[in-house]
Amino acid sequence: MSIHDCSDDAARSADSAFSGRSAPRTVVMKFGGTSVKDLERIRIVAEKVRKERAKGQRVAVVVSAMSGVTNQMVDYCRTLNAQADPAEYDAVVASGEQVTSGLLAIALGALGVPARSFQGWQIPLLTDEMHGCAAIEDVDGTALRQCMDQGIVPVIAGFQGVDAKGRIATLGRGGSDTSAVALAAAIKADQCDIYTDVDGIYTTDPRIVKQARRLEQITYEEMLELASVGAKVLQTRSVGLAMREKVHVRVLSSFVETDENSGTIVVDEDESVEKKLVTGIAYSMDDAKITIRQVPDEPGIAARIFEPLSAAGLNVDMIVQSIGADRSTNMTFTVSKGDEGRACQILEEMRPEIGYGDLNTSKNVAKISVVGVGMRSNTGVATTMFRTLAEKGINLQVISTSEIKISVLIDAEYMELAMRALHTAYGLDAAEGAGA
Amino acid sequence: MSIHDCSDDAARSADSAFSGRSAPRTVVMKFGGTSVKDLERIRIVAEKVRKERAKGQRVAVVVSAMSGVTNQMVDYCRTLNAQADPAEYDAVVASGEQVTSGLLAIALGALGVPARSFQGWQIPLLTDEMHGCAAIEDVDGTALRQCMDQGIVPVIAGFQGVDAKGRIATLGRGGSDTSAVALAAAIKADQCDIYTDVDGIYTTDPRIVKQARRLEQITYEEMLELASVGAKVLQTRSVGLAMREKVHVRVLSSFVETDENSGTIVVDEDESVEKKLVTGIAYSMDDAKITIRQVPDEPGIAARIFEPLSAAGLNVDMIVQSIGADRSTNMTFTVSKGDEGRACQILEEMRPEIGYGDLNTSKNVAKISVVGVGMRSNTGVATTMFRTLAEKGINLQVISTSEIKISVLIDAEYMELAMRALHTAYGLDAAEGAGA
Repeated sequence: MSIHDCSDDAARSADSAFSGRSAPRTVVMKFGGTSVKDLERIRIVAEKVRKERAKGQRVAVVVSAMSGVTNQMVDYCRTLNAQADPAEYDAVVASGEQVTSGLLAIALGALGVPARSFQGWQIPLLTDEMHGCAAIEDVDGTALRQCMDQGIVPVIAGFQGVDAKGRIATLGRGGSDTSAVALAAAIKADQCDIYTDVDGIYTTDPRIVKQARRLEQITYEEMLELASVGAKVLQTRSVGLAMREKVHVRVLSSFVETDENSGTIVVDEDESVEKKLVTGIAYSMDDAKITIRQVPDEPGIAARIFEPLSAAGLNVDMIVQSIGADRSTNMTFTVSKGDEGRACQILEEMRPEIGYGDLNTSKNVAKISVVGVGMRSNTGVATTMFRTLAEKGINLQVISTSEIKISVLIDAEYMELAMRALHTAYGLDAAEGAGA
Repeated sequence: MSIHDCSDDAARSADSAFSGRSAPRTVVMKFGGTSVKDLERIRIVAEKVRKERAKGQRVAVVVSAMSGVTNQMVDYCRTLNAQADPAEYDAVVASGEQVTSGLLAIALGALGVPARSFQGWQIPLLTDEMHGCAAIEDVDGTALRQCMDQGIVPVIAGFQGVDAKGRIATLGRGGSDTSAVALAAAIKADQCDIYTDVDGIYTTDPRIVKQARRLEQITYEEMLELASVGAKVLQTRSVGLAMREKVHVRVLSSFVETDENSGTIVVDEDESVEKKLVTGIAYSMDDAKITIRQVPDEPGIAARIFEPLSAAGLNVDMIVQSIGADRSTNMTFTVSKGDEGRACQILEEMRPEIGYGDLNTSKNVAKISVVGVGMRSNTGVATTMFRTLAEKGINLQVISTSEIKISVLIDAEYMELAMRALHTAYGLDAAEGAGA
């Protein structure tokens, strides 16, 4: 499946409305919790599904729980037992999607659209036994395809599957996106439309940069990098899965009228038609910076410092090592703010053994990242970033780069200024009045 | 399984606490919606289960939805579509029991009692495809027994099963009682304890007759007759099933401390140790009386009148035919108040063909029934009833009798008086101060 197949299909689908001579497109429509939060929203979703199907497409739907329901179920479980059996937790919380799937099937029936609900175990969507955050092992598309062959819209409870022992397992928060992508792959859908409360992926956060612009396309890799630094529209796992399975994912809003040009399509790099150096700019205020000074400059010292942190389950992100005078070195790195206390405790424990000097931490930092597959072949991206921030007098505390991302750590109070300056510098600003 | 087996088991169970030499008893504990209405009640239920298990018994639990939840789900379905697909309706409403089963398993875990939830499809409990009021076709007790063999308490979502197509099916309102009895039969339980918000079956309604007395025993047949005339403690279907499968059902309260003498045990007639003429007195205010006069007294006239009513799904109960003068007859019968309008409409439609005179209806009637297996061999029961009511000046409008029940239709305003007089006449009054 490539973008060309997809375009061909779209063309054929348009044809088929007149000539009926080609196979219809298959579309998965996924609706999140805010999109099905009450009966009125469920009716609106039913109407959207009816319209998609009326175009002559085969449609399968994936739904989340009505918003608030999952939280209530989680509260029930935690209140009864803070260490609730994860398999029982799953049986309880999976009920939310079960309800929505049945209700949407009923709402579709009221519009004259034949529909039936599917729970994870009815598909079956097989998972491993990591209850509460299970991974999908296999999806059998047979029943869903048979359903669509009969003109019936399958309405699938997202977020849930069944393990090898026949117990309900949930995929963890945001797991309905992953359900939708896995199901789209299983039924060889031409597109997987993720309806949410935003109308697409933006070049940056519109609350901070008002010239932020909706992207028509973004690559899987860019999406992954943006998601990991704070632009949480799609669950990261679902993007990785879409990349591996080459599922065309589109993010669009369930709160406005949409057409085939709405939202943002997530595509493979080969298929990307928008060749830009930088696709988006993200920020994160969730990091803490830790600096340890006068570390002995010995071989293996980095491993001796970071292995215990890793063993404790702490995720160390940006690392900079700077050589000081007198055969010592300074080590700076970031962890998430929530892990900062635990990280310092572990570092204090190893101080006698390592024999370092100061240990300083700061939570007053922001991480700014520019992301774009174009920077693979262009070294000017980093230069632009450094020069732009320097012109605004912003000091770079840590720099880290990956193939398609450059991140810098700066003083938190400069975050908005840095974001706006970079958005302009990379030519991402929407034309006046053409913004979201 | 007979009452003697059961007593033996009880004796052995008491032994086993000291010697461990005999097989443990198996008990099904079923908790209705009010018994699990919130987390606090679920904790209390968990504690009750822990105590039963601590006696050395094997315990399986069946739960209803938290009270109110099923009604909300039904409202959701009906609001979206008054003619909701019954299979989808089932997927939605069955979620209530799913939640309770998981939560109770979690609450048991918090008490250190190993437990796991079972949904209908996980057992499996197979039903027919009459969604919304499915009948149980088969229950596989294997998984539940294996669970108990491992010392784990199975916590089963009542009210639900799975049909041959793998779709969730519910057993209709009150179906959790039927689930409990069917499961008790499948795992060959020694007893099926139905915990509810009353502490047993009474000789009559304690709100009307304050001398009403809790029965220690009642036969299946008596229970069926009492349930069908208004004493709605156990779902009628569950009693019929218990009778066929010879399951010892006990009704008791989940709101008080209970022991082996609590509640009312429903037993086979052969096992009944309390040989009384009359076990209970019930009433119903749900009937309407219909009288048609001057019906031609021809062969087959009753069939011509009642067949169309039956074809329309109307349940005709008491029927009396009295011969009038001039080759005509009067026909009096009862239908439920809700069916009265429809019945009259049908009767009016057949008036030209049948050629009867007046059509009169009255909703101002009460049906009083005395029930007891003892009346099989004693004709004095009816005489006592008629004489007692005559002494109070109460006119009998219709009389109907079955093997173990005598019912009379009287003016509604005499209902309480009739109930109290009969309760005394049959010697059912509790000793002063020994009432409920």
